Amino acid sequence: MAAIDKPARKPRAAPADVFSASCPSRAALELISSKWALLIVPALAQGAVRNNELLRRIGGVSQKMLTQTLKDLEYNGLVIRTDHKTVPPHVEYRLSPLGRSLSQTLVALDNWAEKHHGDLTAARERYDMRG
Amino acid sequence: MAAIDKPARKPRAAPADVFSASCPSRAALELISSKWALLIVPALAQGAVRNNELLRRIGGVSQKMLTQTLKDLEYNGLVIRTDHKTVPPHVEYRLSPLGRSLSQTLVALDNWAEKHHGDLTAARERYDMRG
Repeated sequence: MAAIDKPARKPRAAPADVFSASCPSRAALELISSKWALLIVPALAQGAVRNNELLRRIGGVSQKMLTQTLKDLEYNGLVIRTDHKTVPPHVEYRLSPLGRSLSQTLVALDNWAEKHHGDLTAARERYDMRG
Repeated sequence: MAAIDKPARKPRAAPADVFSASCPSRAALELISSKWALLIVPALAQGAVRNNELLRRIGGVSQKMLTQTLKDLEYNGLVIRTDHKTVPPHVEYRLSPLGRSLSQTLVALDNWAEKHHGDLTAARERYDMRG
């Protein structure tokens, strides 16, 4: 007979594996590595920033993409939006503690690109020379 | 009269700025943060891997996207392709020193997604509850 008095054992969740297409961590990776998130999160790393400052700071982003990405980041708990409800409006964006836990890695990625883009260019030139 | 004997001063390049849409570091950032590069580079972090192992390891990638991303990474000097020229064919991919200088950051990004995807889900649920 089954020992029905025993408390049911909670099924243990499989460990997260970003290499698995169906693991929710894959969707998380895609969110945080989206083109604009990679720039917006580091742009907020120093503190609260207003929309127009982000628009100036992040070359090539449209108001539409900036708004959409900030909404996604807020929805996922990475960014906190504060509306000071003043006239004229004063709305600020800053990182949540969760967002700050990510920003160091994204800043490192941006720094790698700034430091090594010349190495990538040199590699392409070497490749093309080999014919 | 201009001092024509003086050696021409080499114009100093502006420092790389990934926030500038026209800076080559922006293109570098987009290469290294492409969906499949974010998984392929970490998958090579432990050593040389063959095509079929990558295909199995990286859920959801098609042969076409795997081949294309490996070619891009090789072209940019991040991955080294070695064809052992045997029958049956034995082709291996591994990180170059430049690729290894990147892999730690990309592994950190994957780890963040695996560790925190539940926090993102919880944040979305809280947001939806607020109505």
